[in-house]
Amino acid sequence: MGAALAAHVGADVAAAGGPAAVAGRKMSPKITTELLKHLRQVMKNPRYVQEPVQAYIVPSGDAHQSEYIAPCDCRRAFISGFDGSAGTAIVTEQHAAMWTDGRYFLQAAHQMDSNWTLMKMGLKDTPTQEDWLVSVLPEGSRVGVDPFIIPADQWKRMSKVLRSAGHDLVPVKENLIDTIWTDCPQRPCKPLITLDLSYTGVTWRDKIVALRSKMAERKVMWFVVTALDEVAWLFNLRGSDVEYNPVFFAYSVIGMNTIRLFIDGDRMMDPAVREHLQLDSTLEPEFKIQVLPYGSILSELQAVGAGLSPKEKVWLSDKASYALTEAIPKAYRYLTPYTPICIAKAVKNAAETEGMRRAHIKDAVALCELFNWLEKEVPKGTVTEIVAADKAEEFRSQQKDFVELSFATISSTGPNGAIIHYKPVPETNRTLSANEIYLLDSGAQYKDGTTDVTRTMHFGTPSAYEKECFTYVLKGHIAVSAAIFPNGTKGHLLDSFARSALWDCGLDYLHGTGHGVGSFLNVHEGPCGISYKTFADEPLEAGMIVSDEPGYYEDGSFGIRIENVVLVIPAETKYNFKNRGSLTFEPLTLVPIQTKMIDVNLLTEKERNWVNEYHQKCREVVGAELERQGRHEALRWLLRETEPLARVQ
Amino acid sequence: MGAALAAHVGADVAAAGGPAAVAGRKMSPKITTELLKHLRQVMKNPRYVQEPVQAYIVPSGDAHQSEYIAPCDCRRAFISGFDGSAGTAIVTEQHAAMWTDGRYFLQAAHQMDSNWTLMKMGLKDTPTQEDWLVSVLPEGSRVGVDPFIIPADQWKRMSKVLRSAGHDLVPVKENLIDTIWTDCPQRPCKPLITLDLSYTGVTWRDKIVALRSKMAERKVMWFVVTALDEVAWLFNLRGSDVEYNPVFFAYSVIGMNTIRLFIDGDRMMDPAVREHLQLDSTLEPEFKIQVLPYGSILSELQAVGAGLSPKEKVWLSDKASYALTEAIPKAYRYLTPYTPICIAKAVKNAAETEGMRRAHIKDAVALCELFNWLEKEVPKGTVTEIVAADKAEEFRSQQKDFVELSFATISSTGPNGAIIHYKPVPETNRTLSANEIYLLDSGAQYKDGTTDVTRTMHFGTPSAYEKECFTYVLKGHIAVSAAIFPNGTKGHLLDSFARSALWDCGLDYLHGTGHGVGSFLNVHEGPCGISYKTFADEPLEAGMIVSDEPGYYEDGSFGIRIENVVLVIPAETKYNFKNRGSLTFEPLTLVPIQTKMIDVNLLTEKERNWVNEYHQKCREVVGAELERQGRHEALRWLLRETEPLARVQ
Repeated sequence: MGAALAAHVGADVAAAGGPAAVAGRKMSPKITTELLKHLRQVMKNPRYVQEPVQAYIVPSGDAHQSEYIAPCDCRRAFISGFDGSAGTAIVTEQHAAMWTDGRYFLQAAHQMDSNWTLMKMGLKDTPTQEDWLVSVLPEGSRVGVDPFIIPADQWKRMSKVLRSAGHDLVPVKENLIDTIWTDCPQRPCKPLITLDLSYTGVTWRDKIVALRSKMAERKVMWFVVTALDEVAWLFNLRGSDVEYNPVFFAYSVIGMNTIRLFIDGDRMMDPAVREHLQLDSTLEPEFKIQVLPYGSILSELQAVGAGLSPKEKVWLSDKASYALTEAIPKAYRYLTPYTPICIAKAVKNAAETEGMRRAHIKDAVALCELFNWLEKEVPKGTVTEIVAADKAEEFRSQQKDFVELSFATISSTGPNGAIIHYKPVPETNRTLSANEIYLLDSGAQYKDGTTDVTRTMHFGTPSAYEKECFTYVLKGHIAVSAAIFPNGTKGHLLDSFARSALWDCGLDYLHGTGHGVGSFLNVHEGPCGISYKTFADEPLEAGMIVSDEPGYYEDGSFGIRIENVVLVIPAETKYNFKNRGSLTFEPLTLVPIQTKMIDVNLLTEKERNWVNEYHQKCREVVGAELERQGRHEALRWLLRETEPLARVQ
Repeated sequence: MGAALAAHVGADVAAAGGPAAVAGRKMSPKITTELLKHLRQVMKNPRYVQEPVQAYIVPSGDAHQSEYIAPCDCRRAFISGFDGSAGTAIVTEQHAAMWTDGRYFLQAAHQMDSNWTLMKMGLKDTPTQEDWLVSVLPEGSRVGVDPFIIPADQWKRMSKVLRSAGHDLVPVKENLIDTIWTDCPQRPCKPLITLDLSYTGVTWRDKIVALRSKMAERKVMWFVVTALDEVAWLFNLRGSDVEYNPVFFAYSVIGMNTIRLFIDGDRMMDPAVREHLQLDSTLEPEFKIQVLPYGSILSELQAVGAGLSPKEKVWLSDKASYALTEAIPKAYRYLTPYTPICIAKAVKNAAETEGMRRAHIKDAVALCELFNWLEKEVPKGTVTEIVAADKAEEFRSQQKDFVELSFATISSTGPNGAIIHYKPVPETNRTLSANEIYLLDSGAQYKDGTTDVTRTMHFGTPSAYEKECFTYVLKGHIAVSAAIFPNGTKGHLLDSFARSALWDCGLDYLHGTGHGVGSFLNVHEGPCGISYKTFADEPLEAGMIVSDEPGYYEDGSFGIRIENVVLVIPAETKYNFKNRGSLTFEPLTLVPIQTKMIDVNLLTEKERNWVNEYHQKCREVVGAELERQGRHEALRWLLRETEPLARVQ
């Protein structure tokens, strides 16, 4: 799925879980007059606030700064009706305003009633939240926010501007939306999955040892794990508290001699989990896990903060919540944009890489079945985008170790394909036909790996123009996939390779080219990616896994995207400048690229060879698995679709 | 010359002007025991410091944050002996330490005596200046620095760290180096050159009008011009106070109704200057220029700062000196990384572009003469690197409107070519031969434009390996030069195009690919460039001029670089996505690329055509000028060197 780090593609699935979201999809505005009245009452209610707050900020995220959030955390969607993945609501005595970006101007306008003012981010005249607050607030106002939801860096920026204008940003302990959200869903607390060494390659004990050695290097005594995928990775556990992301609500605090895990529910009663974490074994004290309630993280961390001796530092992500960051006195904080877990997690070991390979072969089997089925069914005129998406899920679920989808399937035909973050709903659902391009961006969580693949197909005869555009996108995909680059290169330096063929003809696409992919974890993860936006990405290294997904979108007509998940591997080169060594990519995704859509005249010989070698590999690897699973019709489809491209003169 | 913005190539010419620098080049250490003793005395002398300072920082720059500095500003070279372009000295009661980067480790080690500790920047264990100070200073120390030399952003960073460790960064009004530098050269104060409309395209009055409209847009009342090239550009004046840069020491403060120019000497007595600036005419008051002494900038600016009413902002570069920035109370400052003058100056108008074209044709004539001469003379064994550099200057000086060189010529043969920032001196001077690659990176200031060109030649028979490397560099050069990209693209997104062919074979070069070039101004200018380092570059737009100069360097053997100055122009494309329009480059440099060095087998047809079309243009444009100047032998050389490359099968 699209490069989330560029905040362009796909990220909107995040808020699609809750009931509010489903209603919102209907695009009828949510009537919020009463809700806002309630909220404004609690903003002055001494039961919740020491002194009244004149404004209350409702950000998108959860307490872990997750991209995908649980229904109980969809507070901004609840208060406003707007359920896109990105948006911040601010409510004052007089106003209610919503900031969101270009992807959501239309959706937000449809989903919100006239109580709300839409603040279109990225437009020149749109004020920042801080500037707007300064312009509307009476002198000496107090602006409230849930300190668990706002990241520390954002608090800092906002509070500075407000303070210099004579206002105060204040933490409001109780979330004010929760106080008025009477039918708020419960925080999920689902059973855990334990992963053994054959999946993870490294025991949680060894991960703790490695983490402590990084801590010793930086001279820190404590490390606070706040991101959900980092907790899951560290303990070789998975959950299903958040849709699409196999994570569970928890925090962890690692000391040089202690391990604390903050987690709720009876999940720790599960004998498999107890054994996995060796909770009942006699262990060296430094590996003894102390299990504490999820809600006690703040007080425990405050106790840690209070007990620090000089030079004892505590390591946190600079995106951790204001609440947890503040628990540690400033002089003792050690903040970095990427935690050592984030970086270690990105570099997959042999077991994880092999798992990812297996997952991608199974995923390819499912897609061969799907595309074969679509070829037969589409002409009948009964296959809609939703039917196709459901069928894809059905085929995937037949595969071993399938857990769930890794994001909401983007199944889009014709003009819907041009909506980059499209998700079919009954109101927009379109029937696939022989006259339109079909774009399917989908993926799954298997116990051995996470997949994410986009293919663009035509079930009739594509026009010369459609083929031309598809071929430029393919050239860009190959330019990245076949690129050779020195060790130490950051992903953003490869982004232009994906665009060069499109640029030559005056075309482009407005999203990044790739994002990191977790190993049976989040489909979007840091710290690497391929984007024209220069975020502080870490250099690519062998073992990292990213997506390669250039596209081209023509509003009102069609969308094209070709996406493989690729593994960073060492490259053999003729020379070796400064002994740095070189890297390249190996595609993990092994699904045919529709040759019918390719204008072979536009390919160089090198590109034609790349396609033929890729298809040869699909035949060998996926063909063998189709054979093994006795899926002979899909195998015949695969063989047909992977006929070598002939040279054209 | 090399991409200065990447701090890799060429920038070292900066400090090569002063007498200390020349001595330093001899690579015998400067004995600094007495100097340091003096400095430590004045660090405690109440005549210069209110209270003793325990450390004194000597940065590289001047009061205008110039890249190239005048001899009187080479204070760090004076105190230490080390005269590379980048370095910061810090002297405490006990220590003297010098921070510099990888280009200068060897040179600094040779030029400094044992009083100094070399701090190798970029190495893992090297402390930052702040951290080092914290580790060596006694509690509650005062660290002094000349507030005119240190940029405000650097002051801020440093002062924060020192303060949190209990020390103080304090501005020392009188420069302490100047107090002990008895034979310090005088600040230059050379006559000015006035540029009429045929060179500048826009009068200074119209530039002021445009600037005031930008100021009104941002709601600022005052703009402070601190960079020397910005003052020169604004008033359509040039000078020769700094070698290679046609600038003069001055500041300017532009109000909505006033213009103040701070400049010394009798230069304002020159009738041509008086008329150019209309100093004696009856003018609307808002165009009346008030001439004030250079040294009065601080007090005048403090007076401006003291007289501001609420909401009256003052615009400064965020790289302006701490002294000038502090003159404006914090609440009234409007700081940006690039000033509106910097951005306006980068986009050349028709008159400037035409001037740059003319300058480059003349420059090409001079180089055709030089290379023809070298071909005849090198076999005699009498041409050294210095002789060749001098000859290049001689040929250039024969051209109309020649003023001076635009940087110190990099004339290097064999292993010297691998020293990216090489400048021949008697101790290293090597004789050109038929057995070694010769690299010449040179340029000039003409009244109509600035040039900067690198050609790599062989006067015998290059080896297959040398040709291979040259061809990869050429492929990179063409990839940038022929690139088509959307309007709004930042230069750093093109950097990888220049490296792709090298990367494919495991090769690379450790400098940026291009820098902005002034129009009869500094050869390095912002705000655009092409580099893998992501600095905050402004998007490329039509009319901007940058260099395109990939290279390859093999330590101890040879250096290859191919550099053209190129103009950003609109590109015609088949389609036009979102109506954004596209851009590409037109080479302004028209000097043959030695075909003998090209392995044609490694070029694509498109690349071969590019070379042939480029050479065809050299023939037509430069050939006509050689003809006009009656330089028939050089014309024959040009025709020989621009024979089309034949297709190889």
